[in-house]
Amino acid sequence: DSGPDPSDFDLASIYVSDAQYNRNIYFDTSPEAVRLYLRYNHWLAKVLLYFFILVDLSLALFEEPAVLPLPIWATMLVELLCLLVFTIRLAHYAKVIPRDKFWKDPKNICIILTLVDMIIYGALKATNCYGVRWSRVLRPLLLVNVTEGRQLRRAFRSIRNALPQIFYVFLLFMFSLLMFSLMALKLLGKRGLKTIDGAPYFTNYLEIVFDLYVLVTTANSPDVMMPAYNSSFVFAIFFILYILINTYIFMSVFLAVVYNNYKKYLKEEVRQLVRAKRHKMARAFAVLQEHREEGGQPVVSQANWNQMVRLVQPDISNAHRELLWSVADDKNQGKVAFVQLVDLLNIEVITLKSRPHPLQSACPALYLSAPSRLLCRLVQHRAFVIVYDLIILVNAVFIGLDEENPMVSNSEWVFLALYLLEILLKLYVFEPKAFFSRHSFWNWFDTIIVVSALIATIINSAMKSTGGYTSRQILDIVFILRVLRLIRVVDSIKRFRAIINTLIRIGPAILTFGQLIIVVYYIFAMVGMELFKGKVKFFEEDSTDPDKAFCGNTDLKGTAFAQLNYCKNNFNNVVSSFILLVELTVVNQCSGFVAVTHVSARIFFILFHIMVVIIIINIFVAFVLEAFFVEYSVDKSDLQTSLERKIEELELAVEQYVTMTTGHSTPDTITNSFN
Amino acid sequence: DSGPDPSDFDLASIYVSDAQYNRNIYFDTSPEAVRLYLRYNHWLAKVLLYFFILVDLSLALFEEPAVLPLPIWATMLVELLCLLVFTIRLAHYAKVIPRDKFWKDPKNICIILTLVDMIIYGALKATNCYGVRWSRVLRPLLLVNVTEGRQLRRAFRSIRNALPQIFYVFLLFMFSLLMFSLMALKLLGKRGLKTIDGAPYFTNYLEIVFDLYVLVTTANSPDVMMPAYNSSFVFAIFFILYILINTYIFMSVFLAVVYNNYKKYLKEEVRQLVRAKRHKMARAFAVLQEHREEGGQPVVSQANWNQMVRLVQPDISNAHRELLWSVADDKNQGKVAFVQLVDLLNIEVITLKSRPHPLQSACPALYLSAPSRLLCRLVQHRAFVIVYDLIILVNAVFIGLDEENPMVSNSEWVFLALYLLEILLKLYVFEPKAFFSRHSFWNWFDTIIVVSALIATIINSAMKSTGGYTSRQILDIVFILRVLRLIRVVDSIKRFRAIINTLIRIGPAILTFGQLIIVVYYIFAMVGMELFKGKVKFFEEDSTDPDKAFCGNTDLKGTAFAQLNYCKNNFNNVVSSFILLVELTVVNQCSGFVAVTHVSARIFFILFHIMVVIIIINIFVAFVLEAFFVEYSVDKSDLQTSLERKIEELELAVEQYVTMTTGHSTPDTITNSFN
Repeated sequence: DSGPDPSDFDLASIYVSDAQYNRNIYFDTSPEAVRLYLRYNHWLAKVLLYFFILVDLSLALFEEPAVLPLPIWATMLVELLCLLVFTIRLAHYAKVIPRDKFWKDPKNICIILTLVDMIIYGALKATNCYGVRWSRVLRPLLLVNVTEGRQLRRAFRSIRNALPQIFYVFLLFMFSLLMFSLMALKLLGKRGLKTIDGAPYFTNYLEIVFDLYVLVTTANSPDVMMPAYNSSFVFAIFFILYILINTYIFMSVFLAVVYNNYKKYLKEEVRQLVRAKRHKMARAFAVLQEHREEGGQPVVSQANWNQMVRLVQPDISNAHRELLWSVADDKNQGKVAFVQLVDLLNIEVITLKSRPHPLQSACPALYLSAPSRLLCRLVQHRAFVIVYDLIILVNAVFIGLDEENPMVSNSEWVFLALYLLEILLKLYVFEPKAFFSRHSFWNWFDTIIVVSALIATIINSAMKSTGGYTSRQILDIVFILRVLRLIRVVDSIKRFRAIINTLIRIGPAILTFGQLIIVVYYIFAMVGMELFKGKVKFFEEDSTDPDKAFCGNTDLKGTAFAQLNYCKNNFNNVVSSFILLVELTVVNQCSGFVAVTHVSARIFFILFHIMVVIIIINIFVAFVLEAFFVEYSVDKSDLQTSLERKIEELELAVEQYVTMTTGHSTPDTITNSFN
Repeated sequence: DSGPDPSDFDLASIYVSDAQYNRNIYFDTSPEAVRLYLRYNHWLAKVLLYFFILVDLSLALFEEPAVLPLPIWATMLVELLCLLVFTIRLAHYAKVIPRDKFWKDPKNICIILTLVDMIIYGALKATNCYGVRWSRVLRPLLLVNVTEGRQLRRAFRSIRNALPQIFYVFLLFMFSLLMFSLMALKLLGKRGLKTIDGAPYFTNYLEIVFDLYVLVTTANSPDVMMPAYNSSFVFAIFFILYILINTYIFMSVFLAVVYNNYKKYLKEEVRQLVRAKRHKMARAFAVLQEHREEGGQPVVSQANWNQMVRLVQPDISNAHRELLWSVADDKNQGKVAFVQLVDLLNIEVITLKSRPHPLQSACPALYLSAPSRLLCRLVQHRAFVIVYDLIILVNAVFIGLDEENPMVSNSEWVFLALYLLEILLKLYVFEPKAFFSRHSFWNWFDTIIVVSALIATIINSAMKSTGGYTSRQILDIVFILRVLRLIRVVDSIKRFRAIINTLIRIGPAILTFGQLIIVVYYIFAMVGMELFKGKVKFFEEDSTDPDKAFCGNTDLKGTAFAQLNYCKNNFNNVVSSFILLVELTVVNQCSGFVAVTHVSARIFFILFHIMVVIIIINIFVAFVLEAFFVEYSVDKSDLQTSLERKIEELELAVEQYVTMTTGHSTPDTITNSFN
């Protein structure tokens, strides 16, 4: 804020030591290096990097097989530009990191491999040869490996660490699968049974293994057992035993292994972060040149504390700062343990100041008059909430009715007016800053939804009245906003609020998880497109092409895949690939897909199932489970507000504190406490 | 053992106080009451009771709709006999319990309701009216309510306790479902889309709610989204969001709630059992009339301890008893705390005595000769295990080959001989009692499988050589035994052994779980048979009936249900009902089934899904998870054998001890410690 300042520089050198500690290497802390480091971490540089990663990833939309085809030279040029940006960033990075470390970094390898691939592919295309852009699977790895993707890297690392244990359970699962298949072959192979297509049933060992693997995903239940069951109900027992052991028990064991490992490595990571923080605190203390008590912990005086807080968290209020000091210095000695201070700054304090309403300051006579105070009491009354809940219910019924009825479409204006009135009344009664505080999720939600619905409805009726034309897109948005408005009703029921709050709290982690799954989906989509593009074709509803009946592939003639009109489930472009992969995650409806290309599709399907369903979905489930277990254990000790509890925690040892808040304070907030 | 003995009587009176404590009621402890109580708990009485429960439950096989139809008077007579047995047992029970408690017992109500139903049904049938045997759903409740079904009752109780929390999550889930359905109606209802059958797509709100509910079970994915997705890929986002929230997040929340509650109530039960045990111990102490140290715990002298152990656990060896005493009396004071003694007796001590081999005692010269010792060393060598693992692998290949090839079918004799040789060699080397000890699961497994396979193979070849006729059933058994033999190979790999042992350990709990699911299935099967019997008919493979194409129901003409030959999935008898319910548990493939009868089938389907998939399967998963978490946490503290650890635990407070062994020591072993 105040130009180059020696203390600014000192804080910056802590940044550098930060990076040093994380990588266990030592490099120079000269002003030049510090300047480079600060520039490297500038927000603009980071935004640019993310933008180019996004551009690089979305190139898949324009490359063959494309949603919007662009010539090869255009996509290649954009990709080169992206690579250039990454290289500049790397060159920047290389200046502060030793050579040998630099060349081992996976980012470099990705970039070099991509360049090699582009050259080979360009040369092949120029000579009209068949070429494969295999380096496209490396693109999402860049997303994982940029320094900013810490959470994502951590998730990948914990998967890698869990792999050995998963592998042993998987081997045992495969052993069980092979044994059951052998038994099925011996019991059913010689009975001359036929499948529904008239093919011999359970006569080929490898076919049986695959069928029973698919049965684990429950996708071909009960089809796979019907021929045997039709011949005798005794065989149903074989399949029931199989499902019990392989679907229920083994899949639960996979969940247990993944959950257990994820928790174990998360704990280990947090332990390392605590160690790193201590190291940094020691360095920061050396920079502040505070005195150290004899044989005791490093301490800091109140004057220095005030100066430091003003520097690192300028938005903190004086009162808040003094509250924190008084909490830390409870024995009133004028000095506190240095390591505690950062924890204190990390605590999110919700300032619940009873500030007077701006209208009260502007016009006290009116705001404090009897009718105004009656209004305030009414709005704060429980009945006000109940009335609005009833309005929401009536609104829900009206939304369900046919909107072409003029009464129904006009009622929309009434409801909009009522909702607006509610927000205005609340703004009249509550202090606006408190109403729109960072923690009032539902107030923000309400206001945004109602205002957007108002704008969209106005645009829609304006278009209707001017041109007599209704835009389907705007109407869709209006409908979505109307339905979303109804969600607010759950906030009125206390029990629901607890569940919803837990779900909102795990939101950020679900985003990390979303990145993880996008990386995996992207890799599978690239491979899938390369292997299966054009094998299944989609024809529009009004197409009269005779190939429409079998999705443009004669192998699919008469199959369930074509009959059920699944033709759009294909790998013909990156969007439909992603949607197909989601479908495969939910139910491995690969039957039709397998009919197209045999062995490669089966291997693809099994690998995808192992990677996504067995590993990633289980991590997700483990994650939701853990969040709710934490929620329920907090629920039980029904004491204290969030602030009180955190202050109480602070009085415990630091190690305990970190373990207790693992769920909430992400390690990033710890490391960025000086940011 | 030694006739009526005063101490025997005293122990019996502890039994009575037992029942008193459990029910919190007091009744007389006269010798007459004690005799009644002992007779009530006699093993023969219990076996008879279980036999009649089984007969009562299996009546469903013979009643309309029957697997083997019997006349109504026959099944009714058998049922009356069962009821008579239950009533005698109840009358017995009534003598030791106060009247008012007795009449509130659910068993009485079940019996009375069944009688009423039988009379009404008999009367209706006699006058040729339509009657429903509604009391059949009460039969499995008898299984739950007989005193011996403690584990099962506990499971039901914990489900009942978890219901309120599950209910709130379910309400929120339903709210989300209704909101998504409303949005689907508004977004897709007016687009004029058609389903694959040509019906209008997403125009009826209740149909949408049902379709989206089924989507949660993933049964109709991706069919339900295809019309929307075919019109625009944007709608796929709606369905993906829906699946993320309702299938992945809400189903995980259900698992979290069930898991959390199950654990909480299990802990509560164990706490109550500890309290009950202390109470009983105090009473037992009073019976033993031991002296109590001033202000200290009740103590017992070694002489009394020896006498008591001989009485209550006659099978315990002197050495074992003295070891236990020395563990408990580590300060060598000649007396130990009384409450510790029962815990000590409950510890399973695996006596690893190095007894000499019987052959060594019988003929030491031969057994200790050089060739014999060489043989022993060979058999104990690691290579012996490896050689037999290789033999098993070769055997697996031979089993996979066509058994009509004479070389392959003769090789079976070679393998049988090799396996028998292995068992004989091991019996030669290892002491037979140690080899067949209660804890050598694999030795038992091996011997039983190999001997059975030998017997079955001999019978099979005998039949073949005499009549040239091969019984399919015996051949099936031979095949199953051959494949089962291969399972032994997993025991050679240490990592697999750990997983397998955990699975074996949860075996008994899976049995309790099996009873639980049979109760629920039985009730649903009875209701389902009443509602849907005869709606779908199964025709044998060689039938030429024209109705075969649509399972005898014209509503099913042209449906996927009939095309896929699902006709045997019906409620026409209790066996096919059970198998259908298992299929519904795995994937709710209810599509065809719903086509038959609309509203009732849908309600049936949703109730079944809530009860079985949301509650019971989640309990099962929670159970497997917990077993593996315990296993992994034990794995980590890599110290001590089971005995050492338990002895160490004993030195902790009793409360801690019980919490630590919750997983293994079932409460029954605690209460039966005087048995």
